Amino acid sequence: MPRTRPALSSTGPVRLGPDSRAALRPAAVGIGPGFWHARRATNAHASIPQGPALLETAGNLHNLRLAAGTAAGVFQGAYPFVDTDVYKWLEAAAWQLAQAPDDDLAGEVGRIVALVADAQQPDGYLNTWFQLVKGGERYQDLRWGHELYCAGHLIQAAVAHHRATASDELLDVARKFADHIDSVFGPPGSGKPIDGIDGHPEVETALVELHRETGERRYLHLAAYFVDRYGHGLLGGEAYCQDRVPVREATDVEGHAVRQLYLLAAATDLATETGDAELRSAAERLWHAMTTTKTHLTGGLGAHHDEEDFGDPYELPNERAYCETCAAIASIQWSWRMALLTGEARYSDLIERTLYNGFLAGVSLDGERWLYVNPLQVRDGHTDPGGDQSARRTRWFRCACCPPNVMRLLASLEHYLASGDDNGLQIHQYVTGLYTSDQVTVGCETDYPWNGTIALTVEETPADPWTLSLRIPQWCREFRVRCGEKTYEGPTDDGWLRLHRTWASGDKVVLELALEPRLTTADPRVDAVRGCVAIERGPLVHCLEGVDHSGGGLDDIVVDTTRPLAVKHRPDLLGGVTTVVAAGRRRHLPEAGWWPYSAADESPQQDGEPVELTAVPYYAWANREDGSMRVWLPTS
Amino acid sequence: MPRTRPALSSTGPVRLGPDSRAALRPAAVGIGPGFWHARRATNAHASIPQGPALLETAGNLHNLRLAAGTAAGVFQGAYPFVDTDVYKWLEAAAWQLAQAPDDDLAGEVGRIVALVADAQQPDGYLNTWFQLVKGGERYQDLRWGHELYCAGHLIQAAVAHHRATASDELLDVARKFADHIDSVFGPPGSGKPIDGIDGHPEVETALVELHRETGERRYLHLAAYFVDRYGHGLLGGEAYCQDRVPVREATDVEGHAVRQLYLLAAATDLATETGDAELRSAAERLWHAMTTTKTHLTGGLGAHHDEEDFGDPYELPNERAYCETCAAIASIQWSWRMALLTGEARYSDLIERTLYNGFLAGVSLDGERWLYVNPLQVRDGHTDPGGDQSARRTRWFRCACCPPNVMRLLASLEHYLASGDDNGLQIHQYVTGLYTSDQVTVGCETDYPWNGTIALTVEETPADPWTLSLRIPQWCREFRVRCGEKTYEGPTDDGWLRLHRTWASGDKVVLELALEPRLTTADPRVDAVRGCVAIERGPLVHCLEGVDHSGGGLDDIVVDTTRPLAVKHRPDLLGGVTTVVAAGRRRHLPEAGWWPYSAADESPQQDGEPVELTAVPYYAWANREDGSMRVWLPTS
Repeated sequence: MPRTRPALSSTGPVRLGPDSRAALRPAAVGIGPGFWHARRATNAHASIPQGPALLETAGNLHNLRLAAGTAAGVFQGAYPFVDTDVYKWLEAAAWQLAQAPDDDLAGEVGRIVALVADAQQPDGYLNTWFQLVKGGERYQDLRWGHELYCAGHLIQAAVAHHRATASDELLDVARKFADHIDSVFGPPGSGKPIDGIDGHPEVETALVELHRETGERRYLHLAAYFVDRYGHGLLGGEAYCQDRVPVREATDVEGHAVRQLYLLAAATDLATETGDAELRSAAERLWHAMTTTKTHLTGGLGAHHDEEDFGDPYELPNERAYCETCAAIASIQWSWRMALLTGEARYSDLIERTLYNGFLAGVSLDGERWLYVNPLQVRDGHTDPGGDQSARRTRWFRCACCPPNVMRLLASLEHYLASGDDNGLQIHQYVTGLYTSDQVTVGCETDYPWNGTIALTVEETPADPWTLSLRIPQWCREFRVRCGEKTYEGPTDDGWLRLHRTWASGDKVVLELALEPRLTTADPRVDAVRGCVAIERGPLVHCLEGVDHSGGGLDDIVVDTTRPLAVKHRPDLLGGVTTVVAAGRRRHLPEAGWWPYSAADESPQQDGEPVELTAVPYYAWANREDGSMRVWLPTS
Repeated sequence: MPRTRPALSSTGPVRLGPDSRAALRPAAVGIGPGFWHARRATNAHASIPQGPALLETAGNLHNLRLAAGTAAGVFQGAYPFVDTDVYKWLEAAAWQLAQAPDDDLAGEVGRIVALVADAQQPDGYLNTWFQLVKGGERYQDLRWGHELYCAGHLIQAAVAHHRATASDELLDVARKFADHIDSVFGPPGSGKPIDGIDGHPEVETALVELHRETGERRYLHLAAYFVDRYGHGLLGGEAYCQDRVPVREATDVEGHAVRQLYLLAAATDLATETGDAELRSAAERLWHAMTTTKTHLTGGLGAHHDEEDFGDPYELPNERAYCETCAAIASIQWSWRMALLTGEARYSDLIERTLYNGFLAGVSLDGERWLYVNPLQVRDGHTDPGGDQSARRTRWFRCACCPPNVMRLLASLEHYLASGDDNGLQIHQYVTGLYTSDQVTVGCETDYPWNGTIALTVEETPADPWTLSLRIPQWCREFRVRCGEKTYEGPTDDGWLRLHRTWASGDKVVLELALEPRLTTADPRVDAVRGCVAIERGPLVHCLEGVDHSGGGLDDIVVDTTRPLAVKHRPDLLGGVTTVVAAGRRRHLPEAGWWPYSAADESPQQDGEPVELTAVPYYAWANREDGSMRVWLPTS
C-alpha cells in the first residue's frame, strides 16, 4: 500500500466558509502511482517548468515589467487579458508547491509574484493592457476589457499561493485590487461610481473564495452583486456575455461556454455560502439542461467555433465541436461545487467523464503541446490552417488561456476526488492513494481506469460507526462490492453505495466495476451521430485514428455491431493504453458522378472487405502523426 | 403564346469576345408570365425601388457625398467595401432598365451615377473608406482593404449600365479607375509600383468583361496577371484569401467560398478568351471537386460560419450550413461561364438547382427581407441573436453584400437561360417566353416547376436544318419528347436531347418531365445526413416547417419511407406552391435522465403516433412565423 499522504496543503481551490450550506466538505487525497499520478508528474516536470520561458517569449512577463517601469518597449500580445496567463501559471505552480517543495519552482514563483506586485498601481488597479495600451483608461469597455476577469484569476492565484505557501505577498496584491474594485463597483444608490459587470464572468467565483480565505464578507457581497447584475442589459443584453437573461430566470445554458460556466460556478458558490435557494435551483436546472442537451460524449461543451458558443439543444457536431479545453475545466470546477452543495453523485459522474476525455485530450502525453478545441472527428483530407482553433496540437496559443488552465487543474486534482461529512467519507474518483477526512483515513489501490478492481483498506478510524460511500459510476452496468463477509451488487438508487458500520483499522473493501467495452448511442435528437455508435470502456471514450488503420482513411469505415468487442492492452502504445478492437469493413463506393445525392431507392452498394478496428482512448489522440480521427462510427 | 420579346439589351453580364473559345454563345430570352416572371416582378417593384432609401439610411450614399466634398459628416458603415452595395444596386437597376423603361428608376440611377462620378478622385481612384477614413492611404492593406474588389463591382455596374442604356457616364468612371489600377499594379520588372492582388477576388472577372465591352486588351492582361498571382504568398499564403496555392495547381476548392468562386469565374473567363487549356482544366477539376464533395443539396456552398469557408470534403452540416446567398450567386455566375465554355449540360443542372433553392431562399416572397446564410435546418427551440448570420430574415444587413447581389441576378436572369451556336439553339432553363438566337426564335409555354409539361413552338426559323437542344435535368428519371410524329425518351448521353431537322414556323415540340416527388439520400460520407432522406420534386428541394406541424416540433419527427408521397397544390400557401405530403410519425421518447447517451442495446423505444408531413419548397421557407425547419428527415 503506497503511503502517499495528502499534500502539504489540504485545502484546495474550494474551501467552505463557516456558514456554508454544502452537503459535503472537500477532503484531501494523496495520489499514489497510477493513471493520474503519471499525468501529474508530466505536469510537474514538463508543463509547469516550461511556463516561465513561454510567458517570457510571448511577452506576458515583459508587459508586467513595462507596467512596473522596469523595462522599456511596447506591450506584447493580442488581448487585454494576457495577464491571466501569468496568474493561471502562478496558481498551477502554487498548487504544485503544495504537493512537494521545489526550490527552483519556488524561486520562479517568487520572481513572478514580485513582477506582478511591482506592476500594480498604487490604488490597487492592475491590468497591463489598460495601463500600457489604453493610457490608463479604466472600466470604459467592460464588455471586452476583461479587467475584472483578470482580477478574478489574480485572486484565484493569490488564494492558491496563500493556501500553498502561507505567504501573504500575492494575497496582499489581490486584496488591494479587490478593494479597489469594491470601491468602484456597486448598485445604483450605493454611492459607487460604476454599476457594471465584466464581459467575462470569473471575478465572482474568485471573490467568494477570497471571502472564504480572508473572512471578509464585503467580497461575498460584491460577488453576489455582480452575479445578479448579469441579464439586465448592462453589457448590451447579449447572450454571449451572459447578459440576455438573469441567472435566476434562465432555463438553458447559452452564449459563450466558458463565460456561462464560470458564472454558474459563482452562482453555486453563492448558494453554498448564503443558502440562496433560488440560485441553487437555477444552478440545478441549468446543469440538467446542459447535460441532457448540450454536452458531447466526451464531456466537451460548446458547439460553435463562432463566438465559442453553446449551440441549440441537441446541436452537437463532431468535426466542428468546439469543446474548448477551458470549458471542460470550467465544467469540472462548477460540477465539483454542485457535488459539494448537493451531495449528489451525478455531478462527479460528469467530472469523471470530463476528466478522462474532454479535459485530458487538451494536453499532449508529453505535456508540451495543446489543443484549444477538442473535436470528435477529423476527416480524411482535413485541411487545417493551424492556430488556436486548430485540430492539430500546438506548442502555445495566441490566446493562451487553456495551457495554464490545464496546469492548474492537474496540480490541484487531488481536491476534486473525495469529500467528507458528519457521517463519513465519500470517494468520488478512484485513484491509488490515501483518502483522508477528519479522523478517517482509507487507502486505495487500483489500476483504474485500465482495471475495474478497487481495493480499499481502512487505515485510521474512529471507534463510532461511520459510512464509507462509494460512487458507482453512471456508465457502470454491473458492479460488486465485497466488505468483510457481505457482498453488494447494483444498482444503487442514487449512484452512492453506502457502507455503514463500525470499522476497524485493516478492514478491507473491494469494489469491482465491470469494464466490458460497450457500444453507445445518443438520443435520436442528436442529429450529428444518427446511425452511429461510439466505443467506450469504463470512463474512457475511445476513438479511431487514421494512423492505426493503414491502407485507407476512416471515412469509408463501418463498424459491425453484431460482432463482439475485444480488449487488448498495449503497453507499447501511447504511454500504455488498453485498446478496444472491433470488427468493421470498408465500404465500396461506386465511382462518383458529379452529384453526391441520389434517389433513396438507388443507394450505392455498401458491402466491403473486413477490417479490424483499433479504438484508442480519446484522451490520447493526436499524439502521433497528424491524421484523421473519429469517435462516432457509422453502423451501416 | 405570350409575346414577350427579349429585353431592350440582348447582351447580359457575359458577352464573348471575338476570339472567344466558348462552345456556346449566350442567347436572349424574353421571360413571360410564370414562376420567374413573378419573382422578377417583385424584384422590380419591391426590392430594387427600395434600394436608394436603404443605401441612404445605411450611409452608403452619404459616404459618396462626403468623398465628393458635397456633404459634411463622418464615414458611415463598418466595412471598407460599403461602396459595392451601391455598385451592385446600380448594376441591378441597369439590368432592370434594360427590361423596361422606367423614368423614376432611370432618374434614381442617374442621380446615383453622378454621386459616384463626383466621388472619384482626379487620378481615377475611388474608395470612400480609404478616401475618408484612411486619409487617402492606398493599397497598403490589400489583404483586407477591398479596393480592387470595389473596383470590380464598379466595373460590372458600369458595363451593365453601358449595355442597358448606352450611356458612357458610369463606364468612363470605371475605365478611369481601371486605368489607374493598371498603372499601379503589375509583375516585378513591369515598372509598375505594386506587385499585388486583392484579398477578395472580383476585379478579375470584371476586367475581362470590361475588355469585352471596350475591346481594350490591357484589361484582359491585367486580369490574367491578377489571377495568376494568387497562391504565391502575396497575401500571406492564406487559403481564406485564395493565396495558399495557385489556381492552376489547386485540386480542391477551399477558403472563403465567395472569394474562391469569383476567382474561378475569372479563371473561366480567361480560359474562354485566351484558350488557356491549363486554366480550363483547373476550372473543370475544381468544379467537379466542389460538386462531388462540398455542395449542399440546395446548391448552397460554404460549410463554416467561421471565415465563411468551404469545409473539408463531405463536411456539409445542416443547421450550421453557411451557404451564403452571395456564394449561390457566384456559383451561378461561374457555372454559366463553364456552360458557355464547354457546352456541357451539368453546369446548367447546378445552376437550376441553385436558382430554385439555395439562391432563391435568400430573398423573401415580398422582396423586402433577406437571408445572408441559408441553413438546411433550424431546430426546435433555436435561439437566434439576429444579425447578418441569422437564420431569421432581416430587412438589411450590416454587411449588405447579399441583397443587391440578389437584385442584380434576378434583373439579369434572362441571360442565364439559353445559348446558341452555329448548329442552333440550346434551352438550358425552362420558362414561359421567347428564346432567340440568331435567326431562330422559339416560343415556350410552361407552368414549370409546378408542372413538367413544356410546350415549344418554332416561331422563326431559317430554311436550313438546325438543332434544337433541350437540357434534360440531372434530377429527371423519366421524360418524353414529342416532336411532330416522333417521340423520344431518355436517358440522354450527356444531358442534352438534340432535335436536328428542318424546321418550319409553327412546328411544335412538347417535352414532358416526370415530376413525381422523390426521396433523396446522400453519399454515405456526408455524415450530417446519415439515416435521413430529403424530399424533392423536379428542381425543387422541399422542407418541413414547424408552422405546418402544430402540436409539436420537427425534431421528434420521423418520415415513413415505405408510404407513397402525395402532391397537393396549394394556391393559398406562400404565393401558390405545390406541396409534397408524406407519412411520418412522432417518436415517443422516454423521460430523459441527465445523460443523453446510452448503451446501443438499450436504445429508447421509438414508436409514435402517425403525423402527416407537409413539405413546402425550400425557397419559400421563413416567410411566415419564426420557427423550425428541416430539409433532411430521419427515417427511423
